Amino acid sequence: MSLANGRRYLAIPGPSVMPDRVLNAMHQAAPNIYEGNLLDVTASLWPDLKAIAGTQHNAAIYIGNGHAAWEAANTNVFRRDDTAIVLTTGRFGHGWAEHARQLGVRVVITDFGKSAPIDMARAEQALRAEPNARAVLITHVDTASSAKNDVLALRRLMDDLGHPGLLMVDCIASFACDEFHMDDWGVDVMVAASQKGLMTPPGLGLVFFSDKARDVSKSADMRTPYWDWLPRVDANHFYMHFYGTAPTHHLLGLRAAVSMIMDEGIEAVWNRHARLARAVWSAGEAWGQEGAFALNMKDPAHRGHSVTAMRLSGQDGTRLRQWCEHEAGVTLGVGLGMAEPDSPEAGAFFRLAHMGHVNAHMTLGALAVMDTAMKALNIPHGSGALDAAARSLAGN
Amino acid sequence: MSLANGRRYLAIPGPSVMPDRVLNAMHQAAPNIYEGNLLDVTASLWPDLKAIAGTQHNAAIYIGNGHAAWEAANTNVFRRDDTAIVLTTGRFGHGWAEHARQLGVRVVITDFGKSAPIDMARAEQALRAEPNARAVLITHVDTASSAKNDVLALRRLMDDLGHPGLLMVDCIASFACDEFHMDDWGVDVMVAASQKGLMTPPGLGLVFFSDKARDVSKSADMRTPYWDWLPRVDANHFYMHFYGTAPTHHLLGLRAAVSMIMDEGIEAVWNRHARLARAVWSAGEAWGQEGAFALNMKDPAHRGHSVTAMRLSGQDGTRLRQWCEHEAGVTLGVGLGMAEPDSPEAGAFFRLAHMGHVNAHMTLGALAVMDTAMKALNIPHGSGALDAAARSLAGN
Amino acid sequence: MSLANGRRYLAIPGPSVMPDRVLNAMHQAAPNIYEGNLLDVTASLWPDLKAIAGTQHNAAIYIGNGHAAWEAANTNVFRRDDTAIVLTTGRFGHGWAEHARQLGVRVVITDFGKSAPIDMARAEQALRAEPNARAVLITHVDTASSAKNDVLALRRLMDDLGHPGLLMVDCIASFACDEFHMDDWGVDVMVAASQKGLMTPPGLGLVFFSDKARDVSKSADMRTPYWDWLPRVDANHFYMHFYGTAPTHHLLGLRAAVSMIMDEGIEAVWNRHARLARAVWSAGEAWGQEGAFALNMKDPAHRGHSVTAMRLSGQDGTRLRQWCEHEAGVTLGVGLGMAEPDSPEAGAFFRLAHMGHVNAHMTLGALAVMDTAMKALNIPHGSGALDAAARSLAGN
Amino acid sequence: MSLANGRRYLAIPGPSVMPDRVLNAMHQAAPNIYEGNLLDVTASLWPDLKAIAGTQHNAAIYIGNGHAAWEAANTNVFRRDDTAIVLTTGRFGHGWAEHARQLGVRVVITDFGKSAPIDMARAEQALRAEPNARAVLITHVDTASSAKNDVLALRRLMDDLGHPGLLMVDCIASFACDEFHMDDWGVDVMVAASQKGLMTPPGLGLVFFSDKARDVSKSADMRTPYWDWLPRVDANHFYMHFYGTAPTHHLLGLRAAVSMIMDEGIEAVWNRHARLARAVWSAGEAWGQEGAFALNMKDPAHRGHSVTAMRLSGQDGTRLRQWCEHEAGVTLGVGLGMAEPDSPEAGAFFRLAHMGHVNAHMTLGALAVMDTAMKALNIPHGSGALDAAARSLAGN
Repeated sequence: MSLANGRRYLAIPGPSVMPDRVLNAMHQAAPNIYEGNLLDVTASLWPDLKAIAGTQHNAAIYIGNGHAAWEAANTNVFRRDDTAIVLTTGRFGHGWAEHARQLGVRVVITDFGKSAPIDMARAEQALRAEPNARAVLITHVDTASSAKNDVLALRRLMDDLGHPGLLMVDCIASFACDEFHMDDWGVDVMVAASQKGLMTPPGLGLVFFSDKARDVSKSADMRTPYWDWLPRVDANHFYMHFYGTAPTHHLLGLRAAVSMIMDEGIEAVWNRHARLARAVWSAGEAWGQEGAFALNMKDPAHRGHSVTAMRLSGQDGTRLRQWCEHEAGVTLGVGLGMAEPDSPEAGAFFRLAHMGHVNAHMTLGALAVMDTAMKALNIPHGSGALDAAARSLAGN
Repeated sequence: MSLANGRRYLAIPGPSVMPDRVLNAMHQAAPNIYEGNLLDVTASLWPDLKAIAGTQHNAAIYIGNGHAAWEAANTNVFRRDDTAIVLTTGRFGHGWAEHARQLGVRVVITDFGKSAPIDMARAEQALRAEPNARAVLITHVDTASSAKNDVLALRRLMDDLGHPGLLMVDCIASFACDEFHMDDWGVDVMVAASQKGLMTPPGLGLVFFSDKARDVSKSADMRTPYWDWLPRVDANHFYMHFYGTAPTHHLLGLRAAVSMIMDEGIEAVWNRHARLARAVWSAGEAWGQEGAFALNMKDPAHRGHSVTAMRLSGQDGTRLRQWCEHEAGVTLGVGLGMAEPDSPEAGAFFRLAHMGHVNAHMTLGALAVMDTAMKALNIPHGSGALDAAARSLAGN
Repeated sequence: MSLANGRRYLAIPGPSVMPDRVLNAMHQAAPNIYEGNLLDVTASLWPDLKAIAGTQHNAAIYIGNGHAAWEAANTNVFRRDDTAIVLTTGRFGHGWAEHARQLGVRVVITDFGKSAPIDMARAEQALRAEPNARAVLITHVDTASSAKNDVLALRRLMDDLGHPGLLMVDCIASFACDEFHMDDWGVDVMVAASQKGLMTPPGLGLVFFSDKARDVSKSADMRTPYWDWLPRVDANHFYMHFYGTAPTHHLLGLRAAVSMIMDEGIEAVWNRHARLARAVWSAGEAWGQEGAFALNMKDPAHRGHSVTAMRLSGQDGTRLRQWCEHEAGVTLGVGLGMAEPDSPEAGAFFRLAHMGHVNAHMTLGALAVMDTAMKALNIPHGSGALDAAARSLAGN
Repeated sequence: MSLANGRRYLAIPGPSVMPDRVLNAMHQAAPNIYEGNLLDVTASLWPDLKAIAGTQHNAAIYIGNGHAAWEAANTNVFRRDDTAIVLTTGRFGHGWAEHARQLGVRVVITDFGKSAPIDMARAEQALRAEPNARAVLITHVDTASSAKNDVLALRRLMDDLGHPGLLMVDCIASFACDEFHMDDWGVDVMVAASQKGLMTPPGLGLVFFSDKARDVSKSADMRTPYWDWLPRVDANHFYMHFYGTAPTHHLLGLRAAVSMIMDEGIEAVWNRHARLARAVWSAGEAWGQEGAFALNMKDPAHRGHSVTAMRLSGQDGTRLRQWCEHEAGVTLGVGLGMAEPDSPEAGAFFRLAHMGHVNAHMTLGALAVMDTAMKALNIPHGSGALDAAARSLAGN
């Protein structure tokens, strides 16, 4: 007998829950790719995506995943032997850095650990040490650590120092979840993907770029026909937007998802994520009063709003995840990169996503399931977590 | 800004949440109705439906709703001026009785109120008073009051009294949710519908009947070609099962739903409903420690496992429902027939369903949303409800 | 190896091909049945359905099939021992008559055979012979014979004779396919169903009725709570439209289908069916120049526009159907009632539907497949059929 | 009034018609990407895809389109300043060549025109002229010209000459449509995509490669992390197959499509395409007896089986396409690259696809619609085309 049989909730940090409206929009006969509705749908996406990103400049959609968006960004920006400053606050900064390194870029990493944001003093040292770096790469929110960085502060620091590099930001985990203003924050390149805040199945990578980045790309020497962003944003023919056949069904799905965001309003979407995140943190802080439970990020100001990394001890994270999935219908995310795979603590970490198509019922239900799991498994934990979460959402 | 945007949970007592597997099974091109897969699918349904009902006798599927199933049952059983004993424990017994009365049956009601089960002493009086009644009509679980009756006890009473009437049971709210054994409990006619425990959109009414009921029906004088159950169970041609065109897509959907039940096992399905119901009651009992909150049924032994009727006071039930729907994505059921529509208490009642495709996440989430609502709306309530529900499901 | 693997075309006269838009509309989470979108959708259906029927009077939707619509019509109109005049032109008139007879109505049939429309001289005799008949029942288009009757001519005949009976018309096979004007043609009761011209899965029966029929129904003595049409059209509460739970997903599907019809325009829909039917007839007349092939209805003026009954000889109809299905992906309809099941000619008959969601490609493709089948099976047939169909649709 | 309203047939050479089974498989909640069903589904794809390709070696799936598959192939094979021999027989050979050139490869093209296959004598000259070329690139079937090349003959020629280059074949238009045996024909690299014979929405590019190509790739100097095929085929972790998040829904859809192919049998699939193609050609040859109609490829042995390029004169190709789409529900493909865009003949060309999920009904219907269009538009054409197609499929 399992209490999991019912509508399951995949609460991993991507792919997120796909709205019925998105899945229905994708359940269509193949459209004509030479004229008609698909072209109109695609044309309508650019302004809306830019509005969500807070930019008036350039947006390209790649058939690909988030890593594809990294590759698009890197190949359009760098020349071989260029220097990249990478400020890492979890796992994915290292991934993006490694990508650049494999391309032949000289990568200089400053690592802020797995549970802290960028420290601006150390960032200043990094910037001063590499005044000619082509670009500075950061994650807005790291999917693994759930660390969120202050993008605007870094921009101001770069401006104060007169650093000429491009500011490149990975918003894969935060796009359409956490507040973000690309132009106002002086971001040059921003990458995102379809399967998180955009609530569309994996298969699209997005790259937004400033006119400065666009100019820089003209002298980059690693562009390939597939990744080159210039023909994609200056497409004379529809197929040039995608260098070949368009991702027909994904575009239809993305249109539905973006319309849901526009209907709700991006500010309201950010606010919803913020309030749900705070409810999660309230529960987490209560659980942490007793036993090993801890939120990975100590400072709420540096926690992302779409995913929360957590830990127990020993194998309790794994036991918790398995109970939630098999006994209650909630799939939590595995801990990623927080401990070495063969370390005794590897099974301690896990994550709860609250990104995209997520509401109070889903999040409170996930917290209640976690609380039940800890009781069922006799994992010591502070009491009153659900009450705290409810109070948080009730606003009193 | 609303915290409701996400996957909404319709927690009304029917239609229940339709599994993706059911909706996908219905998303098919129209099938041939003369040969092939549809005929095989339909043939495979009878034994499975009978197994779920606990009968080896007769099963008919009508294109219709639950009220259609009432009409099928009544027209096949009664002759004009026959007497029906109806024992009511909420609202739907009155509905079925009224149906029979409109057909010309002499209906004798014993009403056990809106928050109590059948009292066997009074039932005995009713049976003794009408020794020649053609049938005794009861609801297994009343969807409005959530009262559950002891069917076997009534059967034994009828047997003890030598009452010759047919025992007819409305299982619309309980089928595939609460334990039920048609043959072992001596039930002659049982009616159900697709949209509750069977997790299929409204549109099918089911009628199961014993061989005794089958014999009685031959002398009934209100059978019509559509309702007559004999050609449906003795169909020489496929179309006779449905007196005309088969409900193609509903049969495909029902097949998926029934397979889910068979895969899980009906005992496990009942057990899942029982455990989720107990979690709901645990929360309810905690809330009831302070303020006006109350579960409608006092005795757990007489609470149905698929729906729980509850109350607050004044308009607080309505306020709670609206908050849950608009702020958190959970739609609770309205109170039905618990107070006169224009009474000051009409807005006090509401219901939480936990029927069919429902798991720990969905139910705990709904309880947490309700708790949050009471906090947000400053409705006095006992504390610790969510903790109690979690402990209940954790089994400790 | 089969040339059938691809998108199959079910060309039987109901269920017809379901548009993607309809299936998508039905692929939805269960809606609230107490308030919101479903109620709005349902309210919007009545005026559109009446517009398609050409009436300003009453429309009821039953969860049921076409036979259910018969039962709704008969039980609302007749008293036991009333007389019904039935004019049959194929099979389904007999079915409706038999239904009335089983209810206790005195049925007087005039049978015009299986390949002729109503002859008005004989109809006059029938009307004069039963001047007090409560109603006259006919089919607009018989699904089995494809005979179409001149409804207006019959109405005028009744008026000329001063016959007081209600004119009741079965439009199940013709609704939203063949031109029809309920009010202008003086029709009192019209029945239809969802799965043919309305392009929605089987599961809904429709009954339209005049105010005169409404008045008559008040004295009918076979109304049951489920069939009674008065509460359905005068519903104080939403559930009264359907005597219980609404057919949620079918209503959503029907809304999509009706919107498609309204978008195209009912005149354009009729015209499309007329032109496709003429293309079928052109092919049929060419095939009939040699061998046994024949269209069942000789006079184009009396052929329905949604289905064409045809014949070959011996078992060739069955051989043709099987080849089309297994070798080419087209399922033709079986012949229905054109010969006794055990007659040597029982396998000679078959039908091609061209109803609802049907266009030139589908119909021409079906004709081309039939032509190929006759060649592959060495069934003698006239040449040039496809050329004739193409010329017919080309309009030259 | 339009005869197009009904189920439309998109008969362009990709995206092809998506089977309901594929679209249903994609209409799923997001799956877990760390364990469970998705991983099993993906693991099951490799052997089946290899079986369809006729190889026992390596297969990689990229999130991308056909052009992405080109880029994957080129970047894994070439070093800058390598020489590529490209033998073009239409448009797409030029596209692949241009791709290589943009990467920095020295490309030597031998162009066989727009309506002829590779001539082996000229191919021999090309091979002899570049004995050190790293690779020879050809299309199996060119989507624009519908020319099909004899891959095995070219392989034998290379072997006879002792040419050491890799044989790289673009099977985007032919995969799972035209007979192909990768290993037996000595092909080193083969590229395909999801949206044609594989009947899955655009979004996946496939690259198959021999062990020889695998060895060569180790010294290629343009591999990027995204395109590098080695980690994809030697993946230690599931995400490495896709360098990041897997294309969840596309994999589910592809699984359904591949199962359909395996169920039918690849030989039967090829045979079905062959027979449908011959029916198209039969019609085309009849049309060509009068007026300007012509099939682009004269020799049936060199016509692809999945698409047929055709021409009329002046703007008649465009007029024909528009009539078919707007009046009859069939969308034909535009002519691609057969004339300069501003030439007077640019509107003469068009294409009929018959790829993937296609049967006799669909193809015969498309031919009948084209025939009707020519009649309606008074475009001179030979008679008897439909009869010829029917005879062709009837096998007599």
